[in-house]
Amino acid sequence: MNKVYETEIISVGTELLLGHITNTDARDVSELLSKIGVNVRYHSVVGDNPERLAACVEIAKSRADVIITTGGLGPTCDDLTKQVLAKAFHLPLVEDAAEMEGLYEYIKGGRKYTPNNFSQALLPQGCTVFHNLWGTAPGCAFEAEGKIVLMLPGPPNECVPMFRTYGIPYLRKLSEEQIVSHSLRIFGMGESAVDDLFAEEMNAMRNPSMAPYAKECDCLLQVTAKAESEAEAEAMMAPVMREVREKLGDLVYGMDIESIEESVLPLMKERGLTFAAAESCTGGEVAKRFTDLPGASQVFLGGCVTYTNEAKTRLLGIDPALIEAHSAVSEEVVRVMAERVRALTGADLGLGVTGLAGPDGDGIHEVGTVFVSLAAPEKTYVRALRLGAFRTRSFVRRMAGNHLYDMMRRWLCRLPVEEISR
Amino acid sequence: MNKVYETEIISVGTELLLGHITNTDARDVSELLSKIGVNVRYHSVVGDNPERLAACVEIAKSRADVIITTGGLGPTCDDLTKQVLAKAFHLPLVEDAAEMEGLYEYIKGGRKYTPNNFSQALLPQGCTVFHNLWGTAPGCAFEAEGKIVLMLPGPPNECVPMFRTYGIPYLRKLSEEQIVSHSLRIFGMGESAVDDLFAEEMNAMRNPSMAPYAKECDCLLQVTAKAESEAEAEAMMAPVMREVREKLGDLVYGMDIESIEESVLPLMKERGLTFAAAESCTGGEVAKRFTDLPGASQVFLGGCVTYTNEAKTRLLGIDPALIEAHSAVSEEVVRVMAERVRALTGADLGLGVTGLAGPDGDGIHEVGTVFVSLAAPEKTYVRALRLGAFRTRSFVRRMAGNHLYDMMRRWLCRLPVEEISR
Repeated sequence: MNKVYETEIISVGTELLLGHITNTDARDVSELLSKIGVNVRYHSVVGDNPERLAACVEIAKSRADVIITTGGLGPTCDDLTKQVLAKAFHLPLVEDAAEMEGLYEYIKGGRKYTPNNFSQALLPQGCTVFHNLWGTAPGCAFEAEGKIVLMLPGPPNECVPMFRTYGIPYLRKLSEEQIVSHSLRIFGMGESAVDDLFAEEMNAMRNPSMAPYAKECDCLLQVTAKAESEAEAEAMMAPVMREVREKLGDLVYGMDIESIEESVLPLMKERGLTFAAAESCTGGEVAKRFTDLPGASQVFLGGCVTYTNEAKTRLLGIDPALIEAHSAVSEEVVRVMAERVRALTGADLGLGVTGLAGPDGDGIHEVGTVFVSLAAPEKTYVRALRLGAFRTRSFVRRMAGNHLYDMMRRWLCRLPVEEISR
Repeated sequence: MNKVYETEIISVGTELLLGHITNTDARDVSELLSKIGVNVRYHSVVGDNPERLAACVEIAKSRADVIITTGGLGPTCDDLTKQVLAKAFHLPLVEDAAEMEGLYEYIKGGRKYTPNNFSQALLPQGCTVFHNLWGTAPGCAFEAEGKIVLMLPGPPNECVPMFRTYGIPYLRKLSEEQIVSHSLRIFGMGESAVDDLFAEEMNAMRNPSMAPYAKECDCLLQVTAKAESEAEAEAMMAPVMREVREKLGDLVYGMDIESIEESVLPLMKERGLTFAAAESCTGGEVAKRFTDLPGASQVFLGGCVTYTNEAKTRLLGIDPALIEAHSAVSEEVVRVMAERVRALTGADLGLGVTGLAGPDGDGIHEVGTVFVSLAAPEKTYVRALRLGAFRTRSFVRRMAGNHLYDMMRRWLCRLPVEEISR
């Protein structure tokens, strides 16, 4: 097969329609598909209702080549999705011996079960079983009536690793052509500026191709190539990536990662360095983001959240007269915050952040005014940010964190720290 | 009209299909609809493509009474959604005088614009305009061909307030019957246990009705009533709510709120109390969650993130011998963490949390072992949690925070703090 697959993702679950949970499965599966060049054309969400699901599957059969379902595989939902999909493609459900064995083992371990549990081992005849290493209900894939069907469990911590482990290789094998994609993550230039910068190249390029996309507080440039093998696709992309990196310079903070702090962790680890943070307006978010990363404890020592002026004095020992003279939202205060937390913890680097995240102001500064600082052994660096009064509280807080991690990255790469330059 | 509306939400945007953004609009609009008793039957996502959108609209017309679109209204997407929907319902787009005026004002203010900007003032003939107080592109609503259509902008900080402000009242007005719904939020009992507890009542009830739903780290019980007026519906629910609250007792932490910390903020404000937090495994998340709430600074002073043992000593002054004797993950250490941060900041209450969020263990405790503490003037309260080694890092961290805020809530309500009891 040498075609571009048109894909529909059908997510099954009444709680999605009630707004109790967010459809992150569709997002994550889509993102993984886009990296192998599979076009997702539709997402659909339907409740735990066999008739409505069956109707959705008929629509998907009429407009997509690949149908991926998420959810409705567990014993509590009566394996709704498997039953409906098998029927839609006229396949009987048969007992899978390996999955039955697995269920017996599970029960022998003393777990509670119901007769429904055994229905999990019933799978469409001739399918490829995706054994669930992250939960109990297996997923599967089959080809029938000219369509490719994949079924994945609903819980995100089962759905996404299962799709990555089994689904992506399964889809890759069906294609003679390999599509490979990389995302260069950019901080310090917006999507439209990136678009302008590469407009000529992008218009002239066919394979590899290139496109910029906006994220909440930064953007990315996705480069994609098609070839007979992954290695060949990589080789085709290499000169393009080099050229892009040359043009964007130090604005590129990483490839195929999700956040700027992910680029900082390995750099710090490699050099055996540690840091600490003193946060005011971000209220712990800078620390929280870094400690979201497994392995953070080798690099991040801790810090202080000094939300009030008094806390700045009590926890960091900042002179109240300094705050009085310059206000808490000032270059002078943020500088001392970073230096004090560095000294207090004995870290190699100290971060400081103070500002107005809104919605309320302080009567002095515009909402969105933030000062961020990096205390290094040789000096303390500061950036003054005007993020815009129309921004949301969560945007201001996230953007402040991005600037701090960008300063760390630039310091670690021996680049100018206070300016954002290419 | 006295019917139950079947609704489909169509979200328009290629970036949703690429997995670059999550469809929070569909979730938030669905949640608001479920509160007024409107049944959402389908979510659909389609790219910025007029033919595919038109086909989706035809499908929605065949299976839904209410069609709500999100996205595709701005000038950069050529007002895709408005054009396609107007065409699907055979309505001309006409210039709205008030919106044109607004655009002129906007441009007079010195903003950049393109001719495309003016297309924003073109709206389906006879529609109700939803003036956008949170951005520029207006939304709208109309009735045609027996269907009700609402169009909302894509950015979540425009879509959700616009739907709440104009969309919900618009839909309410169409109905002779008023449906009102409240969510009682429960911490300390799972969804299935709540289900068991009220099984009999729920089977017997028709109007009002009641259903439990699981959230990530807690659950909710949704009570819904239909009547001729909102007041009547409220009156019908009142005895049910009373009975539920009596049966669940102190496990109910609030009504129509999103998180347990939201229940703590007003209680603390009312009594003029402050708190501070010393966090290890949660790495700043407890502070971050509270400071996500506007107005947090009246209550939350700050605290310490002491991710390493040395930071516990340096920032909180914890004796290294204590850590050596009991390990950092212990009742003894968490007790001192809460007491020290309380003393250091001068807060009325101090929180402490230490544990193993995983994926790596410490060779002593199982992953998911967490100790949380509340230092109050009269004594320090501790809970020892075994959250389960199979849980994700983010679950363990979030659940630890929920326990801390639950302890605060119980202390504020003069309830037993260490046990979770009804």
